[in-house]
Order: sequence, then structure tokens, then C-alpha cells
Amino acid sequence: MDHLFRIGQLRRKLTKTGLSGLLVTHLPDIRYLCGFTGSSAALAVTRRTARLFTDGRYAAQAADEVKGAPVQIGSGSAAVAAVEWLAAQPGATLAGFDPVWTSVADLARLKAALPSPMRRGFLSPLAAPLVERLRLVKDDKELALMGEAALLGCRLFEHILGFIRPGLMEVEVAAELEHQARLEGAEGMSFETIVASGERSALPHGRATTTRLPRKGFVTLDFGIIHGGYCSDMTRTVYLGKPRSKERAAYEAVLEAQEAGVQAVRAGTSCGEVDEAARGVLRKAGLAEAFSHSTGHGVGLEIHESPRIGAGQKTRLLAGMVVTIEPGIYLPGEFGIRIEDMVAVTRTGGQVLTPSPKALIEL
Amino acid sequence: MDHLFRIGQLRRKLTKTGLSGLLVTHLPDIRYLCGFTGSSAALAVTRRTARLFTDGRYAAQAADEVKGAPVQIGSGSAAVAAVEWLAAQPGATLAGFDPVWTSVADLARLKAALPSPMRRGFLSPLAAPLVERLRLVKDDKELALMGEAALLGCRLFEHILGFIRPGLMEVEVAAELEHQARLEGAEGMSFETIVASGERSALPHGRATTTRLPRKGFVTLDFGIIHGGYCSDMTRTVYLGKPRSKERAAYEAVLEAQEAGVQAVRAGTSCGEVDEAARGVLRKAGLAEAFSHSTGHGVGLEIHESPRIGAGQKTRLLAGMVVTIEPGIYLPGEFGIRIEDMVAVTRTGGQVLTPSPKALIEL
Repeated sequence: MDHLFRIGQLRRKLTKTGLSGLLVTHLPDIRYLCGFTGSSAALAVTRRTARLFTDGRYAAQAADEVKGAPVQIGSGSAAVAAVEWLAAQPGATLAGFDPVWTSVADLARLKAALPSPMRRGFLSPLAAPLVERLRLVKDDKELALMGEAALLGCRLFEHILGFIRPGLMEVEVAAELEHQARLEGAEGMSFETIVASGERSALPHGRATTTRLPRKGFVTLDFGIIHGGYCSDMTRTVYLGKPRSKERAAYEAVLEAQEAGVQAVRAGTSCGEVDEAARGVLRKAGLAEAFSHSTGHGVGLEIHESPRIGAGQKTRLLAGMVVTIEPGIYLPGEFGIRIEDMVAVTRTGGQVLTPSPKALIEL
Repeated sequence: MDHLFRIGQLRRKLTKTGLSGLLVTHLPDIRYLCGFTGSSAALAVTRRTARLFTDGRYAAQAADEVKGAPVQIGSGSAAVAAVEWLAAQPGATLAGFDPVWTSVADLARLKAALPSPMRRGFLSPLAAPLVERLRLVKDDKELALMGEAALLGCRLFEHILGFIRPGLMEVEVAAELEHQARLEGAEGMSFETIVASGERSALPHGRATTTRLPRKGFVTLDFGIIHGGYCSDMTRTVYLGKPRSKERAAYEAVLEAQEAGVQAVRAGTSCGEVDEAARGVLRKAGLAEAFSHSTGHGVGLEIHESPRIGAGQKTRLLAGMVVTIEPGIYLPGEFGIRIEDMVAVTRTGGQVLTPSPKALIEL
């Protein structure tokens, strides 16, 4: 990854915003900027230089991974060490921090570590996130990794189609899928695998339970893997047995909404317009009430990133963003259906990264 | 679980601290207090009543799970809705929030939602966490679940001993362990499974990679499962082949340190004394430098909870706490060893919840 380039971009933003330095504590931001994958660190960036702070557990790993910043090992809080270092740099006047990833307690501790004249004005919450902005648009290497991650997800879906049968517990399906993911080289799952069958498919976030798959009914599979640090995310809903006409019609409506959402993806389109493309189809089908969440979200080093593809969202899509398009309907006590693809935004449209079939599969 | 009792305890604490209400946003705290397991919610507690706020995705689940508080479904931020509700209660004067689990950005948003006369003084950061204090000491039902979780971990260790052999990739070992965990009914893993072999055993947090297990060398397995919401955590280090005398001596030193740590566990003892019991053994063996982390941590609904078993920690153990005892040594470029048990604190000592063998296993 081009860590030097990324830190360079951030440095230019610092200059623009009048900050002498920036404290970065959100781990995916740290990984993005300098490559460190450990679970405890802080990165300090000034207009001239950068430094990563971590503890003894990560000495060997940091030496191996970190690019673009010297590493300093300490025994106390990495964030405190980073702020002390920022305050001691020549020309230190104003250091930004991300208020979304800094707790009220952390901020109090950071301020207490500063020399008293700096306690009031040195640390300043960013009005808009700086690193998240950089991460929104994926570069070619990131897009390549995400494409691989998404295709691994598709292979897992194909694998699990050969495994699913009535009477299996949902957790057995999840276990098989996760085991196969590991064998195919996934670093882990990007979130808790959802296997929701029968009436449970009406739960948008139905974690796999010991419920047994019915002889007849929908099964929603929503899962993702991690590959090179990047998350995949996809959902397919299949049917065990022969669907009733109401079920089939509902599936067709969700599929039409999902495809309309995908069609609407293009650089320059607002997130609200994409949401409306999908939502409008379900509204026409009389299913507006049953679609109780947003149409999608950005994905990358984190499973949920900006932008949010929701009603009224004015953010415009940019080429290089990767978003999910995942409308769903939920009829409590009856059934639920969700279909989700990952889509990379291009100047002329959207490139679906998860090409698994979407026509209703009857098992 | 005794959710009504827990909310009652919290209410008494509110009265003692002079708060008219409390905003709870940390999800494990919410689960502890009212049973809700969804991923988006806020709980508002006053001296008289309590209310859970969540969104449409969780309507069915909340109705099913939540005890001791009516549920209110909304479409915006649950925390904002909870604070607005707290501010509108009769006698609302001062509402506490946990500064550890409230971001600077969240606090700004919560204040902005208040009527302007309340913006300055209504929300107050807790000086000491209230719910975390309650969660420190586990009740009988919690201890039973944690004992079951720990024993499931032990069965997985026994299973994986029959699977490990030179040439397997670390991720294959992790996959087998996680698959078996699911089949035995685990709800998930409590953290990313660590399988660190050969020189990689010197990485305290060596996630499983595609590295192949050596013919000769240590393999550290650190893993945990989730059962009834509660985490297990255990580590064993085994040897492939015949250890050299230096390796055997190092293993014996870590084992002696670990057993000394376990022996020191008892209600009334300080965490620093327990840490020193283990650390002192490694110091005498000339391995003080190689033991680069704390001796252990509390465990429960979260994999890392209070108290921390570290050097100089004055917190005293209480009967009903569950802690890990996990000294380790790490010799970069050579090898590492860690041994970890979960131990329930009793008035007369410590009860080991993870009775898997600890004498060096040669495979």
C-alpha cells in the first residue's frame, strides 16, 4: 500500500486546515495511514513528520509493518505519549483529534498530560474527519483486494448452497461457511454471520441460532470475510421448498428494488437518490413499511464506513467508493427477504463486485 | 437473569450519587441491565423507572428480550431519544453518562438535543462507572454460564490436540477449532483466535496466519468462545517434537509463575499482589524483561473487563469476580510461551474454571 503517499495527502490537509498536528487513534485509520495492524496504538502526524506509538507487545510487529513513521515503544497510554510528543514539536500550536473516536474520558486524560498553558487550546476537535475522507475513495490496490474479498464471498455462497438442507441448525450453516472461509484463506469474518430461516428471516439482524432450517421457507444468509484487512459483505435469500405466490412476488419486488439501486449507482449521484431508486420500487409494491432500514453503506477496512445510502442523504458518490446495495423487507411472524451486493462506484456507473446469482434459488 | 434486581441496584446507586437519571449506551451494560442483545440501543434509568430506546430493526427482538423496562422504537439516534426522555421526566435535574463510552462527538449531539436551559448542567460525566461496578461481581447464574463457557473451551483444546500436526497452516488450526466451537454450541468466538507457532509464538498477539506449523517448536493457542453472552478465555502452549533444555526450562518457569498467580487469587488480595506473585517467579528466573504485559484481566460479558491484574494495581479482588491469570514470555526470533486460566475469586481462594492440563504437552 502507498502509505507514504497517504501520510503525504494527510499532511497537505493539515496545512490547509491550519493544524500543526493531528492525533489519530482509530485503529482502521492507523492501519490505513501506516500499515500497523495491532490492537493498541496512536499515530501522531505533523506537517513535517509522523510517529507511531505502541507498547512492548507490538514491538516486533510494528517494526515489521509500519511504513512512513518511526515507531516509539512505551509502557503507558499510546495516545497520551502521542499528544505529549505533538505538544513538544517545534511550532506546535494546534492539534486536531477526531471527536467521533475520542471518548470524553480520553480527552480529559489527554488534556491532563499537557503542560498547563496548552490544556485549554491545544487540542481541537476536527469539524470534519480528515482520515475518513481519504479512506472514502479506494485506490487501485484497495479495489483489487476488495474485489478478491467479494469473490471469495461468492465462492462461499456457492459452497453453502451445496450444504444447506432442512433440519440443519442455523449455526451449523454458519459454522460450515466460516470454516470454508478460513480454508479458502480469509483472515476472519467481517461481522457475525447471519443465518435467519423461516419466520426468523423477518429479523433484519438474525444471528445464527440453534433453530433448525424448515422444510419450507426463506433462509437469509448475510456474511462477509476479511482479506488483506478489507471487508466483504453480501446477502442472498434462498427458499427451501416451493414458495407460495405471495412469497415469490415479495422476492421479485426486493430483487427489482435491489437492481434499481445498483443501476442508480454512478459518480455524481447523491446517496439519497440511490436509496430512493430502491425504496421507490418497494413503495409501489406496497412494501414501503416493510423496508425498515437504509439501502446501504460504504465498506472498506471497516464493515460500515461512510457514506450511508439512506433517505435524503445529500452526499454524492465518487468514483472509487465501494458501497453495499441491500434493500430488504421484513414481515414479522411471516418471513423476510434481503438481497445485497457490493458495488464499486465508477464514473459511468457501478461495478458489482459480488456476481453470485440473484434469481430466486429453490433448494 | 435477574434484570429487575440489577436495575433496582442501579436505582439505589443513582439516589446515593444525587443523580436524577442515567444514560446507558455501552451495549454490554445494556445487555446486563435489561437483557437486550441488539447492536443499537440506549437505556435511560431514573430513580423510579427505566426505558429502552432502539430502532425498527430490533422491534421484534426487543419485545422478546427486554425485561424491566418498556421499549420505545424510534428512527433517529437512540441515545438522543433517551436523553430527551430523561430531560422530560418529572424532577429531572442531573443525568449521568459514562465518559468512557461516550465520544466527544456524541456528547455534543446529546447536548444539542436538550432544551437550552439544560444544555450546560444537565449531563454530567460519572466520576466512577456505575454499571461496570455492578458487573464486576458475577452472580450465581453468571458464574454458571461462565463455568460452562470455560469448560467448552477446555473440550475444544482437547479436540485440537488431536488435530495439530507439523505442516498444517495456523489458520487451518484456527478454522478447525472455531468450527468445532460452533458445532458444540458456541454463539461465537470471544476474540480473534491466536495460533502462533515457531518463532511467531514470540508475538504475544499472533493472530493465525498461513504460516505452517514447524516440525519442532512451540505453538501457542489463545482462544475463547461466547456462551449465553459470556466470554471464555484460555491459553495453552504445546510443543511439536522434543524441546531443547532451554525451552523446557522456560516453559517450567512460566508454568510456575502461572500457578503462583493462581495461588495468589483470593478475595481481599490486591490485583498488584497477584501480578507480583507471577512476575516475581519470572524475575527470579531472569525472565522479567521477557514478560512484557500484565498478568491478567477481568472477563464476563466482555473479553476484557475490570479489574486489571497489573503491577501496582491497588484494586482488591472480591468474591464473584472472574479474572484471567496469563503470564507469558516472549523472546523475539526464538520463541514465546503463555499459559492462561480463567479463575473465579472466592472468599478462600480461586476456583480455576479451565482445568485443561498445563504440564508441557509434546506432540
